[in-house]
Amino acid sequence: MEKLTIVKVGGKIVEEPDSLKQLLFDFSKIEGYKVLVHGGGRSATTLATRLGITSKMVNGRRITDSDMLKVVTMVYGGLVNKQIVAGLQAIGVNGLGLSGCDLNYIRSEKRPVTDVDYGFVGDIKEINADILVDLILKGVVPVLAPLTHDNAGNLLNTNADTIAGEVAKALAAFFDVTLIYCFEKKGVLLKEDDDESVIINLTAPLFKQYVSDGIIQGGMIPKLENSFDALKAGVKLVVITRADMIGNKGGTTIEI
Amino acid sequence: MEKLTIVKVGGKIVEEPDSLKQLLFDFSKIEGYKVLVHGGGRSATTLATRLGITSKMVNGRRITDSDMLKVVTMVYGGLVNKQIVAGLQAIGVNGLGLSGCDLNYIRSEKRPVTDVDYGFVGDIKEINADILVDLILKGVVPVLAPLTHDNAGNLLNTNADTIAGEVAKALAAFFDVTLIYCFEKKGVLLKEDDDESVIINLTAPLFKQYVSDGIIQGGMIPKLENSFDALKAGVKLVVITRADMIGNKGGTTIEI
Repeated sequence: MEKLTIVKVGGKIVEEPDSLKQLLFDFSKIEGYKVLVHGGGRSATTLATRLGITSKMVNGRRITDSDMLKVVTMVYGGLVNKQIVAGLQAIGVNGLGLSGCDLNYIRSEKRPVTDVDYGFVGDIKEINADILVDLILKGVVPVLAPLTHDNAGNLLNTNADTIAGEVAKALAAFFDVTLIYCFEKKGVLLKEDDDESVIINLTAPLFKQYVSDGIIQGGMIPKLENSFDALKAGVKLVVITRADMIGNKGGTTIEI
Repeated sequence: MEKLTIVKVGGKIVEEPDSLKQLLFDFSKIEGYKVLVHGGGRSATTLATRLGITSKMVNGRRITDSDMLKVVTMVYGGLVNKQIVAGLQAIGVNGLGLSGCDLNYIRSEKRPVTDVDYGFVGDIKEINADILVDLILKGVVPVLAPLTHDNAGNLLNTNADTIAGEVAKALAAFFDVTLIYCFEKKGVLLKEDDDESVIINLTAPLFKQYVSDGIIQGGMIPKLENSFDALKAGVKLVVITRADMIGNKGGTTIEI
C-alpha cells in the first residue's frame, strides 16, 4: 500500500499568517499522499467575543448553541479552511476544503443530551472513505474542517482530533497511514516543565503506567487513547509533535 | 450534448431558512446536471455591522478591505455555502461547496486601482472547466461561493453574477447550458411598478431599444449585458426570473 500522512493542526499555528505559511510549506514537503485536518477554536472564540456571544465550556469542551454553530461554521468552514487551501494552492498543493456535508463525506448525529447538553455537536457515524480515496489518488489534498452534518440539513461542530482519528481509521484499509497530531510541545513530556523530556516511544503498557503514576494527565489522556484506538484499527503510525517538527522524525511515536 | 442548468441566487432567499429550503427543493427538481451559484451580501453586511466594520459602497459595489475580506470569506465560503450544501444533501443532492481556491478552480487577479480602489476584489482570469466537468459527470452538484483566489495565497471577493456567467461560458463547450439568474422580480419588467409586465423574450436589438428609451436601467443593464455575452460565448439560454419560479418556464428569456 502507498503511504498517506494525515496531519492535524490547531491553535495559533493555523490562525496567524506567518506560522501558517511555514506550516503549509513544511506540510508540502511531506512525501506521498497527504490530508490536513485543522481546528480554529481561538478564532472562533475571538469572533464570538466580538459578537457578544459567550463561549460556554464544560470539561474543556465548547457548548455549541445555535449562535455558536454559526460562528464555527463561518470560522472553520470559511475563514480558516479557505485561507489554508489558498495558501496550499500558492505552493503547488492542490487543496480542496471539505466540511462533512461536502460530498456527504462525514455523517454524524447530534450528541444525545445526558448530564450535559453539548448543543450542536456531532458524533461521527459514517465516513465515506471511497470519496476521500478517489480524491487523494487524483493528487488532491483534502483540507478537513471540524464540521460534520447529520444528513438532515444540520451542520454540527465536531472535534478536529476526532475527525483526524476517524478519517485515519477509515483510510487505513487503503493506505499505510501515518497520523500526526500537532500541539504546542515537542512531544509527550516526562516532566511537564521540561520541554526536552520528550518520550520518544510510547507503548500501551507504558502509557497505562504513566497515567497511574500521574506523569501523563489532563487533555493528553484522551488524545493518547484516540491514538491507541487508531493503531488498533489499522493505522500504521501515530506521532505527537510540534507543528514545526512535522518534517523531521521528532516527537513522540505511539506504538501498541 | 447533455443539459446543464446553472442557477444563480442571492439576497434574502439563501439567507433565511424557510425560503432557502423551498429554493433547494425547487432546484433539486430541475432535470439534468446542475450547478448552484450563491451570493450572501446581506449576511455579510449584517455581520460587518455587528463587528463595527463599515461597508463602503462605490457604484453599488462593495469595497473589500482586509477586514471585509475576512467577513465575506466567513459568510460566503463558510456560513451560506455550507448551509446550502447541508440542505442539498438532506434532499439527496450531492453538493460540494467550492470557493475559487478549492482545486484551483477559479484563478483571479486583484482588480487594478484606477479612480476607485475596490480592495480585495478579484477579476476572473482562468476557470478550470475540466475540474468542474469531471465532478458534474460524476453526479456532484458544485455549489459555488463568490470567492476566488490569485494562486499566490490571497482570497478575493468576486461578484456571484460574474462567477455564474463565466462558469456558464466555460462549461458551454461541454454541455447545453441554461443560465438562470434569480432576483426579486418575476422577470425583466416593462413597467417598474407593474410586477406582471414581464418581458417574455428579450433580444439584443430590443434590449438596446429599451435602454435608450429608459425602460431598462440601473443594475439590470450590466446583468443583461453579461447575459448577452454568455449567449455569444455559446451558452444556449439565459433566463432572468424570481427564485420561486425556477421550476416552471416563467421569467424573461434572453436571446441574441
